[in-house]
Amino acid sequence: MAEEPKQMKEFEFIEWIRSQTKLDPAVVPVGPGDDTAVVMCGNEKLMVTIDQLLDGVHFKLEACGAKAAGGKAMARSLSDVAAMAALPLGAVVSIALPKGFLREQAEDVHQGLRKVGERFRCPIVGGDVGAWSGPLAIGVTIFARPAGIKPVLRSGAKVGDALCVTGSFGGAWKTQRHLKFVPRIHEARILASRHELHSMIDVSDGLSADLAHICQMSGVGAEVLAGSIPIHPDAKSDPADPTGLTSALGDGEDYELLFTMPAAQADELLRDQPLTVRVSRIGTVVAEKTITLVRADGSKEPLTPHGWEHRA
Amino acid sequence: MAEEPKQMKEFEFIEWIRSQTKLDPAVVPVGPGDDTAVVMCGNEKLMVTIDQLLDGVHFKLEACGAKAAGGKAMARSLSDVAAMAALPLGAVVSIALPKGFLREQAEDVHQGLRKVGERFRCPIVGGDVGAWSGPLAIGVTIFARPAGIKPVLRSGAKVGDALCVTGSFGGAWKTQRHLKFVPRIHEARILASRHELHSMIDVSDGLSADLAHICQMSGVGAEVLAGSIPIHPDAKSDPADPTGLTSALGDGEDYELLFTMPAAQADELLRDQPLTVRVSRIGTVVAEKTITLVRADGSKEPLTPHGWEHRA
Repeated sequence: MAEEPKQMKEFEFIEWIRSQTKLDPAVVPVGPGDDTAVVMCGNEKLMVTIDQLLDGVHFKLEACGAKAAGGKAMARSLSDVAAMAALPLGAVVSIALPKGFLREQAEDVHQGLRKVGERFRCPIVGGDVGAWSGPLAIGVTIFARPAGIKPVLRSGAKVGDALCVTGSFGGAWKTQRHLKFVPRIHEARILASRHELHSMIDVSDGLSADLAHICQMSGVGAEVLAGSIPIHPDAKSDPADPTGLTSALGDGEDYELLFTMPAAQADELLRDQPLTVRVSRIGTVVAEKTITLVRADGSKEPLTPHGWEHRA
Repeated sequence: MAEEPKQMKEFEFIEWIRSQTKLDPAVVPVGPGDDTAVVMCGNEKLMVTIDQLLDGVHFKLEACGAKAAGGKAMARSLSDVAAMAALPLGAVVSIALPKGFLREQAEDVHQGLRKVGERFRCPIVGGDVGAWSGPLAIGVTIFARPAGIKPVLRSGAKVGDALCVTGSFGGAWKTQRHLKFVPRIHEARILASRHELHSMIDVSDGLSADLAHICQMSGVGAEVLAGSIPIHPDAKSDPADPTGLTSALGDGEDYELLFTMPAAQADELLRDQPLTVRVSRIGTVVAEKTITLVRADGSKEPLTPHGWEHRA
């Protein structure tokens, strides 16, 4: 019997792409799989990331409007740059406009993109615009530079590291917080210039899923203290999840930083709180390659990575 | 009476975007409006271009298949790099997959992208893949470097320059030639290293439309000799246009180079023919800011830029 044609599974497909990719590390020190790629441009390190925002998947145009969609598109790619502790140089954008789109809506997309870019000195230096029969799709590529700070990868977590986060988690999709978050560019630069960050990622898929990315790429595991996870008020409206913990671990779209660093330095950081957003320690990196959730009563359970799924 | 909401006109919208863009020339020497942007990355010049390929607009998935769509997407952005006489460093790609897409088709898109990239030492270093309810959309950003050759802009054409092209024109959409063209990366490097190219563009919109872009950005006009335009055999099948001239001037999607250079150097170039594709002179850059078509009988008429329109 012939094998049935395989339906697409995105994560498997991305794994397959990685397996197909063979890069010269002298030219491309960091390839697919981190928040940005790192490429040598002469003697300079260049970081590059691309993200697409799709109507019905990452936003709902009818509900949020064109300007918010554009703003989120730029902020999402900036969040990837933040996760490397890099500084943006500029962006190029592609916009696929639905037929019948009004000029005013198209301007709104662009203004949304531009306004958020300007806040982070990330000018739009080029782009491609076209109309088609499909829904609104926005692509944003940002290129960035280390500017004196070594890129912080996903793969550097070390056993004994403190597991830390900025801000709080959960409910971002439900309350539209995902449309107006602040990419943690400045925060990442402050953290990485004051402390030795071993690994970092921005939480888009979900706290547990993104922690799993760090653990997998670093070849480590983690213990997470349930009671120490900062839960956003937006996460607490579901009677089935009164503490909001499930929401905080799984919702995603928080765009906060999740990072690991030497425990002694984390103590100092938590005491100093040098950011305008609160930094919390939520656990510890361990050698055994599993992720464990430790409840307040000391009971332990495996923390299965569950995260972002299509909502449309 | 209230003004009616404006329907989108893409070219007007792009003009509006340019008018909104204020860039520091010390950081972004070339912004939107050329084939690539040029950005300073430390002491290195970095060139960046983004293009989106949309099902039903730039290809028809049902007719051409996923691999050809991926291949064209990469080749199209490489063609922009060629038009600056630059060398690609790498690419990041975004792929919006229609729901129900098969894994095999998704692999085909990626292989199409990768194969064409590899031919021009342009590895895919990162990307973003997601499924949605819309048609297939492929975004390709390429970043490139001058590698010893000064970027050739659209804006440098000088009065008296010879107007030259590689290859021949017309009928590329009708015969699917637009799916398998060769981006003129090597040819542009040879031309620009041997000669003083004043301006260059790749012909995607159409020969007359892309010539208009050069003239507009250089503040000049041009005289084009109808009899000297190299017409592709693909252009000659229409009884209403037996010579194929209309098709050659307007079809677009040829992805050949259109460039201007000192007339004496052009004589040398035409004699030497250093490329594997033929170089032809099709006219002259003039001071009066109009574009004129000179027929074989010496009669002159204004050459209205007409070019690429949506075919779907």
